[in-house]
Amino acid sequence: MPGLIQSIERAAAVLRLLASGARKMGVGELATALDLPKGTVHGILRTLQHVGFVEQSPDTGKYQLGPALFHIGSSYLDGNELRTRALNWSDSLAGRSRESVRIGTLHEGQVLVVHHVFRPDNSSQVLEVGALLPAHASALGKVLLANDPVGELGEQPLARFTEATVTEPERLAEALEDVRRRGWAADLEELVEGEVSLAAPIRDRRTVTVGAIGVSGPVERLCDSAGEPRTDLVSYVREAARAISRELGAIPW
Amino acid sequence: MPGLIQSIERAAAVLRLLASGARKMGVGELATALDLPKGTVHGILRTLQHVGFVEQSPDTGKYQLGPALFHIGSSYLDGNELRTRALNWSDSLAGRSRESVRIGTLHEGQVLVVHHVFRPDNSSQVLEVGALLPAHASALGKVLLANDPVGELGEQPLARFTEATVTEPERLAEALEDVRRRGWAADLEELVEGEVSLAAPIRDRRTVTVGAIGVSGPVERLCDSAGEPRTDLVSYVREAARAISRELGAIPW
Repeated sequence: MPGLIQSIERAAAVLRLLASGARKMGVGELATALDLPKGTVHGILRTLQHVGFVEQSPDTGKYQLGPALFHIGSSYLDGNELRTRALNWSDSLAGRSRESVRIGTLHEGQVLVVHHVFRPDNSSQVLEVGALLPAHASALGKVLLANDPVGELGEQPLARFTEATVTEPERLAEALEDVRRRGWAADLEELVEGEVSLAAPIRDRRTVTVGAIGVSGPVERLCDSAGEPRTDLVSYVREAARAISRELGAIPW
Repeated sequence: MPGLIQSIERAAAVLRLLASGARKMGVGELATALDLPKGTVHGILRTLQHVGFVEQSPDTGKYQLGPALFHIGSSYLDGNELRTRALNWSDSLAGRSRESVRIGTLHEGQVLVVHHVFRPDNSSQVLEVGALLPAHASALGKVLLANDPVGELGEQPLARFTEATVTEPERLAEALEDVRRRGWAADLEELVEGEVSLAAPIRDRRTVTVGAIGVSGPVERLCDSAGEPRTDLVSYVREAARAISRELGAIPW
């Protein structure tokens, strides 16, 4: 693409690589992965270290992401209107459903979690803000894919996580058609065995789907005796989605 | 500094500016703030947008941080050994103290919050991971400053937040001397009126202080009738700090 600044693109590629594993990487490793001379990568790393975006381990000389990048990245959430408008509604959805609540947007074919309210039961839970979920195997993702004009999922193969994961493109297309018709999506143990999630779309004033909100929890609590998602939970999720959409300027529907 | 790549430094400066306010910025504003030609800034923004680090508002044409930067920044936490080792201990500190727990490291003279466990009481709380706290007005910060060989706080004036904030450098130096002697720090309504925090240092195998862990909550719960920090809470905090230090390889002391 003309007009792009190569060294910035390369610096971004270095940061992506460092973010892709929980592992530290050396100059040589990074140079091989990026197919660039070691000297070039070293200059990029020195600069990224200077601005605090990476740090070098004093023991091994390997590199990892730095605190400045973390702090700047976190600021994304402050400017994220979807998240800001959704804070109260997601708290109240967690309170009504007694389950954990997540809000996500589509990012490079996956679901980026921008907000997470823990299940209000004092249990120990891991914060998933900033995590990426597979779109085809989560209720949030199905809602986003079903309403995405671009169809961001593309050609990649659909990974299998459990026996219930939808891995055939044709079956996924049918499932997304259902989601569009019903206005909400379910993942019935398709990502994690024993776990179910439900989600509905959040729309803005252009009635574009800008995100999804949903609950997740054990199948025993989220489904009825027939194995179907509990209708009261579905209505709580949809009500929360509508309330946030209204705040974002979508016409109430 | 020789050997640094100017365009990467400038891109980092753009991202810092966009992170500094919750507000979107236009090309002109950014160019003025950075004292660079508009064309230069536009090229940087185009590239940052291409890699997903910034996004442009379709309505106003202004720029804000993008989701890719948020996701990459979040990965910092996965590689943060301090945080990984501290997860269980901070849960248990929150359980014992019945207060919220935070872990911080020193970053550019402020306290970067890398972990936050909510007070286990089902109340609605705001996640502070990624936030920066003023070092001189928080218990975490005092612990970090007291044990920082570089004295990162530097020459900046000490901002006042409440009547109790320590704003005179001499008084702060005395307070830090106390912290070093006692091995823990308190902030008695110095950052937020009615709120108290307590913290102790986390050391690694080089016995360098790499972080601090602490609790915070209302003065009525954290202090005794004499207005002093409750000794049981202080000991819980110090025990948690020692346990994490031991995991990081510091000799038990």
